[in-house]
Parts: sequence; structure tokens; C-alpha cells
Amino acid sequence: MKHLLLTAAAAVSLILPAFAEEPAAIPSPGEIVAAAPASDWVAIAPSDLLVMDLAPDAKGKARRVVIQLIPAPFSQGWIGNIRKLAAAHWWDGTSVNRVQDNYVAQWGDATEKKALPAGLEVVPESEYVTPTKGTGGTNRSVTQDGRPLVLSWSGRYPGWSWTDADDAYSTKRSFLAGWPFASTDGRIGWPVHCYGAVGVGRNMSPDTGSGAELYAVIGHAPRHLDRNIAVVGRVVSGIEHLSSLPRGTGALGFYEDAAERVAIRSIRVATELPAADQPRFEYLSTESDSFARYADARQNRRDPFFIKPAGGADICNIPVPVRPTPAK
Amino acid sequence: MKHLLLTAAAAVSLILPAFAEEPAAIPSPGEIVAAAPASDWVAIAPSDLLVMDLAPDAKGKARRVVIQLIPAPFSQGWIGNIRKLAAAHWWDGTSVNRVQDNYVAQWGDATEKKALPAGLEVVPESEYVTPTKGTGGTNRSVTQDGRPLVLSWSGRYPGWSWTDADDAYSTKRSFLAGWPFASTDGRIGWPVHCYGAVGVGRNMSPDTGSGAELYAVIGHAPRHLDRNIAVVGRVVSGIEHLSSLPRGTGALGFYEDAAERVAIRSIRVATELPAADQPRFEYLSTESDSFARYADARQNRRDPFFIKPAGGADICNIPVPVRPTPAK
Repeated sequence: MKHLLLTAAAAVSLILPAFAEEPAAIPSPGEIVAAAPASDWVAIAPSDLLVMDLAPDAKGKARRVVIQLIPAPFSQGWIGNIRKLAAAHWWDGTSVNRVQDNYVAQWGDATEKKALPAGLEVVPESEYVTPTKGTGGTNRSVTQDGRPLVLSWSGRYPGWSWTDADDAYSTKRSFLAGWPFASTDGRIGWPVHCYGAVGVGRNMSPDTGSGAELYAVIGHAPRHLDRNIAVVGRVVSGIEHLSSLPRGTGALGFYEDAAERVAIRSIRVATELPAADQPRFEYLSTESDSFARYADARQNRRDPFFIKPAGGADICNIPVPVRPTPAK
Repeated sequence: MKHLLLTAAAAVSLILPAFAEEPAAIPSPGEIVAAAPASDWVAIAPSDLLVMDLAPDAKGKARRVVIQLIPAPFSQGWIGNIRKLAAAHWWDGTSVNRVQDNYVAQWGDATEKKALPAGLEVVPESEYVTPTKGTGGTNRSVTQDGRPLVLSWSGRYPGWSWTDADDAYSTKRSFLAGWPFASTDGRIGWPVHCYGAVGVGRNMSPDTGSGAELYAVIGHAPRHLDRNIAVVGRVVSGIEHLSSLPRGTGALGFYEDAAERVAIRSIRVATELPAADQPRFEYLSTESDSFARYADARQNRRDPFFIKPAGGADICNIPVPVRPTPAK
């Protein structure tokens, strides 16, 4: 049983074996997700998936990282640029150049001399946030035991509704269309820098970055970057190919020796890949009862391992479940 | 300049080169730490350092992880056990057996058959928290620009004082003697699970673990473990030797193949090492003005990269600065 230590906080995708003798009266977050009906899962369009193939590892094993681009109306200026860069095969032959522990893995053109495709947009800083277009929709309070649920959403997209949050970085939070957002006034919202978030490197303000230089968060959520850098997506598969890379020993985790860089073979929007090679993913609808129960369980762990439910969870500790689309 | 992307959120220990033409009027957290006088740093006793030497990596490079044990009166039952286990050289020949992405790296005896030393204490669950012994001391409000500072501490140890916190897991927080603590009522406090925290694996309640099975947090702070598992220390050096290990492909990140395990050559309290091999570290006093200014700057980034200071930071995003003791 020692091998089941710390099981109760298992990753979303890891479903614990049921206890044969003593079934949990109250399911864990993972069990709730596993029990969600197929109708609660939403397919991610292949046109919103960015497929990054790194050079194989030292043992010759393939390393594929799949990134979901955030949907409209969020960060679309940068995402338009990213689509152009991918279509131009601009990243092919570039590399992961920086891996800073508890912070980010960053990739792009290490030479800084590669010409960018024509027609990239210069996106204004105002696009770091998005005005809400409505506050209608349904507030839900589904819990396992009748306690109020600190979660809400809107049934109307792209409008959304907010819940007051115990959060050092904002006063409100919302899950909308599968993504977490924060706000201070409920009139504008922004996607948050959680583990796995993908953002756009930039120079000093007013530069906002083109999208050619990207990073993924591989540590504790750097929420101080919210509203200061564009969030354009999140890693939905293969984050370990970035998070387990050797840390760079240069300033800010840059690799000091060019030989340490990790070659990027290609980055493609999935629709450009042969059909058989296109990844398929789906997320648990943040508008579903299953998600409400899952979020509640993340905030108040009642499965057998826990003796003291926290009574809350920060928004980055309620990761939206994403999984490969099961075979039919 | 592209190589300085994201510089503003650099790790504490990374000090940015000053801008020759345009010096930052307001220093970054890293600059504040670099400028702290020697008197603001507190030496960590070698008797409170646990030195874990892993087998060298594939290139033959040494891998040393140094852990600071949390001082009395916190978690001392487990720490007493850990001292006994280290003195018995119990971990020598054991291994890192589990690396779960965005969660923990865990080590101990994979066979689960190795006899434990005699005399280990069975620590009660009540020891997950610690009663405050006083609330005296000094509240400070040192800021760079006169804004109120969301931070406080006590000048009296082991008593401490609390500040209201915007936190999903607690209502109060405190930095005391170099460590972060949370509380809901100000009468009891507990050390928090931040990145790098070291805790004690356990079985189902009422088991609390002996201390033989340990883990380090290598992802977003799993604060739901607070008050559910003992925090006994934190990694102060070499976390990358755990956080960049290949992720286990078994359930919960366990290595499926024994050959994947990472051998532990030895774990020693530093005082047992030859004097020349004993690591020396110091932390920035959480009772110092330097720490107050650093914490304020972590919450309100005003250095040139940032256009929108967050106005707050979660307790795990204000890591207490720790560094090797500089040569005299």
C-alpha cells in the first residue's frame, strides 16, 4: 500500500483503483471525471491544436507536445500570427532555448535572425484582457453535500459570469468554454497563467511579442504575468517533454551551450498533418454538472485519504480535465 | 534583447544586469535581495541540512540535493525520525521511485521490505498543525511607494502574528523564522506545501508516515495537502535533480521498470559529512526590512518589464530567498 501514498491528489487523468472492501462513499475528483457522461465532453477542433514535434530523446523516443490554442475572442491577434508562423513552417529547425526551473520552457529562433513571415499583426497591450459581452447564464451550486459551491459560469458564450474568489491576483474568477479566467471588476477578464499555460515572449513595453517566441509554464503558476503577457494556449499533452528537460545553467535558464538546445522538428496546426496523425482531444465542459462536481471536489476533498478538506482551491488547482478522445 | 524576454519574473537568485542608459527607478525583487546587507541573512545550521546524493547522471555529473529541515517546534516528531534514519544510513541504496508531473518526486525503499531503525516515533495527526504561542511582535509596513504591505511577522519566536490573506486555503498568513505558514483562526498555524516543500508520504489515516518515505513538490503548490500530510522541510539546492527527472509512466508517476529508478547513494545530516564537504546556506531573515521590501515587490512588480502590477501574490509566490553562504 505504500505505493499508493499521496494518491488522493493524483492528476486528473489518473483514476484510482476502487477499494475493494471499502468503497469511497464520496468520489474523488478523478472518479467524478471518469464517471462523466460522454455528453459532458467537448471535442477540441483540430484547427485549434498546435502540434510541436521535438527531436527524439537520447533513447530515440519521439517527443510530441500538443497545445490547444485559446478560442475567440481571446488573444486572437497573436493566435493569427501563430497560425501564419505554423503555416510558413517557421519554427522548423528552431529550438527550445531556455528551461528555467519552477518557471518556463521557452522556444523560438535562438539566432534571433530568422526573418518572420510577412503580415504579422502588431497586437496592442489592450488585448491582454477581454471585455465581457454579457453576464447572463446560469449560476450552479451542485455540491456533494449541500455546501455552497465557489464556482459559476455562464450559459451564454462569449458572455460569462463571475464568482468572488479568494485570490491574491484578482477578486473574481470564471470558467468559460473550458478555460479559467480572472477579473477584478467583472467587466474585463483575462486568461490566467496556470501550469501548462502557453504565452508569448516579448521585449519591454510597448512590445507585446509577435508569437514567434513562446513559452510554457512548468512551475508554480506565475500569476504576476497575467495582464502583462499574452496567454495564447495550454499544453494538453506532452508537457513532460518540456518540464523534464535539463534546466539551463545560464541567466534565466537559457542554455549556455548551443548543443544543449532541444531541436524542434516541426510545429503544425493539426489540420495540416495527415489525418491519421492528427491528435484528437476533448475537454470536460465547464458548463456541465460533472465539472461543477469535480471543481467542488477539488476544493473540498472528501475521498478517504483526506482528513481536512481545504475548503477552497486556487483557480490553477482546478485544472480543466482534457483527455485524448476515446475510440468509439 | 530577445534573450531577456520574461526577465522580470526571474528567479530570486538571478540578478538582472542594470540597464546602462536607463536605471530602474524601482528595483525588482531580485535587486532588493542582492542589495540586502549581510546582517539580514541568517545562517542555516548544518545540523538542519539533509544532504541527498543521487547517483551521477548519464553524463557522470554529480547530483546533490540539499534539504533544509523545518525548525522546532514544527513537525519535530517526523524530523526526529528522519535524523535517526539518516544516522542509520537507512536511505543509502534506496531510490527515487516516483516522479509525477506537476506534483511530486518521491523517494524511499521501493521494496517496502527494508527494516526501519528501532525507536521511530509514531506521530499523531495533531502534529500537522502547531498552536501559536503568542501574537506579539512588530507589524511592518515598509513599501516602496507608501502602499500598505500585506505582510507581517512577529519579533518573538516562536510566537507569530498573522496577516489577512486573499487565499483559497486559509484566511491568514505569516512568515516566521524563514518559513511560510497559513492559518484560519490565528490560533494554530501550519507550514504550507509550496514548490520545493518536502513532506512525509503516508498511508490512510490515522497513519501519518514515519519519515522514511519522502517527497518534494515539483509543480504548482498542492495546498490541499496542507494539514493532511506533514511538511518537514524544503529543497534549498539541487531541486532540478528531482524536477527534471523523467516522469514515471505508471499510475501516480511511479516508475514501471525498476531500472528507471534513480539510485540514492546516501542521505546524511550535513554535520556527518567531512567539514570541507558540508554545504553552507543562509536565508533572508523574514523579520528584516529587506524581506519586507522583497515581498512587497513580489506582490507589486514595478520594475520596467511590468505594465500591470498584480496587487498581491499567493504565499507560494513569495519564496523565501535562500543562497549559498558567500565566501568571506
